[in-house]
Amino acid sequence: MSELKTDTRLWSSKARNLSPYVPGEQPQHDNLCKLNTNENPFPPSPKVGEAIAKILEQQADDLRLYPAPESDDLRAALAQLYDLDVNQVFVGNGSDEVLALVFASFFMKERPVLAPDISYSFYPVYAQTFGVELVQIALEEDFSIDPDTYRQPCSGIIIANPNAPTGLLLSLADIRKLASEHSNAVVVIDEAYIDFAHIKDGNSDAQVSAVSLINDCDNILVTQTFSKSRSLAGLRVGMAFGNPSLIEALTRMKNSFNSYPLDKLAQVGATASVLDIDYFEKTRQQVIDLRQSLTAELTVLDYEVLPSHANFVFVRPKDGNASAVASALREQGIIVRHFDKPRIADYLRITVGTAEQNQRLIDALKELHIDTGVTAG
Amino acid sequence: MSELKTDTRLWSSKARNLSPYVPGEQPQHDNLCKLNTNENPFPPSPKVGEAIAKILEQQADDLRLYPAPESDDLRAALAQLYDLDVNQVFVGNGSDEVLALVFASFFMKERPVLAPDISYSFYPVYAQTFGVELVQIALEEDFSIDPDTYRQPCSGIIIANPNAPTGLLLSLADIRKLASEHSNAVVVIDEAYIDFAHIKDGNSDAQVSAVSLINDCDNILVTQTFSKSRSLAGLRVGMAFGNPSLIEALTRMKNSFNSYPLDKLAQVGATASVLDIDYFEKTRQQVIDLRQSLTAELTVLDYEVLPSHANFVFVRPKDGNASAVASALREQGIIVRHFDKPRIADYLRITVGTAEQNQRLIDALKELHIDTGVTAG
Repeated sequence: MSELKTDTRLWSSKARNLSPYVPGEQPQHDNLCKLNTNENPFPPSPKVGEAIAKILEQQADDLRLYPAPESDDLRAALAQLYDLDVNQVFVGNGSDEVLALVFASFFMKERPVLAPDISYSFYPVYAQTFGVELVQIALEEDFSIDPDTYRQPCSGIIIANPNAPTGLLLSLADIRKLASEHSNAVVVIDEAYIDFAHIKDGNSDAQVSAVSLINDCDNILVTQTFSKSRSLAGLRVGMAFGNPSLIEALTRMKNSFNSYPLDKLAQVGATASVLDIDYFEKTRQQVIDLRQSLTAELTVLDYEVLPSHANFVFVRPKDGNASAVASALREQGIIVRHFDKPRIADYLRITVGTAEQNQRLIDALKELHIDTGVTAG
Repeated sequence: MSELKTDTRLWSSKARNLSPYVPGEQPQHDNLCKLNTNENPFPPSPKVGEAIAKILEQQADDLRLYPAPESDDLRAALAQLYDLDVNQVFVGNGSDEVLALVFASFFMKERPVLAPDISYSFYPVYAQTFGVELVQIALEEDFSIDPDTYRQPCSGIIIANPNAPTGLLLSLADIRKLASEHSNAVVVIDEAYIDFAHIKDGNSDAQVSAVSLINDCDNILVTQTFSKSRSLAGLRVGMAFGNPSLIEALTRMKNSFNSYPLDKLAQVGATASVLDIDYFEKTRQQVIDLRQSLTAELTVLDYEVLPSHANFVFVRPKDGNASAVASALREQGIIVRHFDKPRIADYLRITVGTAEQNQRLIDALKELHIDTGVTAG
């Protein structure tokens, strides 16, 4: 952006010592197959645009007024969705803002916060921002989480579930165990991808969201987002569910940073999304189905695919040359995410796209295989 | 919201010790004359709704994608408006979020930050949130700011200009003096209301915004908002202008809290507002004109009215019984702001409304005067 040498003389030491989060790139040119930031391949519910358009038609003048500071209607819709009381629901400007407030509200304590060593890369950034010690607990060899490895003093635990970038799911029994073994710590379950998780337990679907635990466990806080399963990354809405005392802490913290984080249109659009249950159920099932077929095709191509419960797959070319595969795909206009980090440098995280996008990816991988021998090293 | 006794056991001490900001009330019933939160009496530019509606019509599906993280188009429009480089412009989720990032980026230092004793009541809240010592410098007897009273060691200075709730304006000469006398401190000028300031200097309009100083003074940072002069409180957009190194600090801090604070629709709507210069000039002049006539009428009613450069007036009933006047007005459905604080308890802050609203206020005050004798005693 600038060729100037940055003059940090007037910065706080906090500002100087930050290592900000680096989101996945958002290249803007056409015909790109963007499978790198886990956006939903389907558009949001048409009701979202309709509700916002209606507000603009009937009440555009009201944009001159401050929005509802606590997003009451949206929180009421979310409370109804999960059969909760409205005071068990918090909303913010994307789940990233919610997570920042979580770190400030519950983790700024003497003891460290525990998180998996391989997880959402914003967690270490928040820890630095809020001066919190983060202890990273190693995932097992198969990238699963063993709750027993979390048996150490802490102020809190944060786990993405399904975890990113692995896509693996932790069971509710394990989450309950973590909460009961750490009754003086807040256990945060970051469920950005939970709506794509699905487990058959005999003939019925087993519950996977920890929202079902919050009435039992007063130290579980669950965060979710509209950016993935609700196809609304562009609208910036995230939420948290927990017992009213936890929600009150978040509300106080919010009102000490920024009283009105959700604009009027985002509140209206997000509310419309929550109310359109049919569309939500239909599209999330489509993503799950597409994930299953993508997984099958990658397996045929000799990729190791972790069992994903998210809208992405975490895969390893059998020879491990993930970085070369990512570069070769990029030349074909297909962007996937490669993390140049210990333990996962041999893997690629690939967002589940539309059927066409997935086919384009598979075709490109087949070409690589045959023509360039990239995956052969 | 809840009758439960709050259990703060799991809160951080930070969360426990906060005294969150309390915004002016937003009662929802009809026929209320809401002159308490300094919203613009005019609607936003029609181009705002049109631009958002067009995006919804043509690209609603793109809400599934993350928005531009640095709001490039909006920043480019603001840069052009003020003849700046885009790397001198920062935007955030309302100027409240921008101010929070300012405190974290520039004021978290050993030395205190200085602010007027009577000013925006969010400043002491931010100081507490970020563990910054705030030294309040007394305004003069007439509520003006004397730059000489700021001659003390500090990490920064923050001044609302025009100040709130007084409406008084500090000159650019005084701001320049503050900046040069504190070359190792960031001088933040919070210009939420600057577009309503207007000074005739001979035959031409004198410049009042400190944005004109940022190329000269590398330690001046100016914040502004879309909530007042642009009638977009409902859209949550604020901005900061300063030298590229200051902007880079804010950007890094933002990316350590929340990478995508402005949703796609807010970016599009705010950009359309900036580009509609004619509408902006017309409505801000109308507000200024309405302020002048309201001031004249209040003066006739024997109210002392401070010379306001904002979209509100700060007034004192001659007998000082401001609280009783506010209560009596409320019974008539007219809400004004009374601050029960030292030095200003005898004053009321009244937002400039439409001609009709202002007339309703004046009529109600006349009635009070005659019928109830409130102001007499």
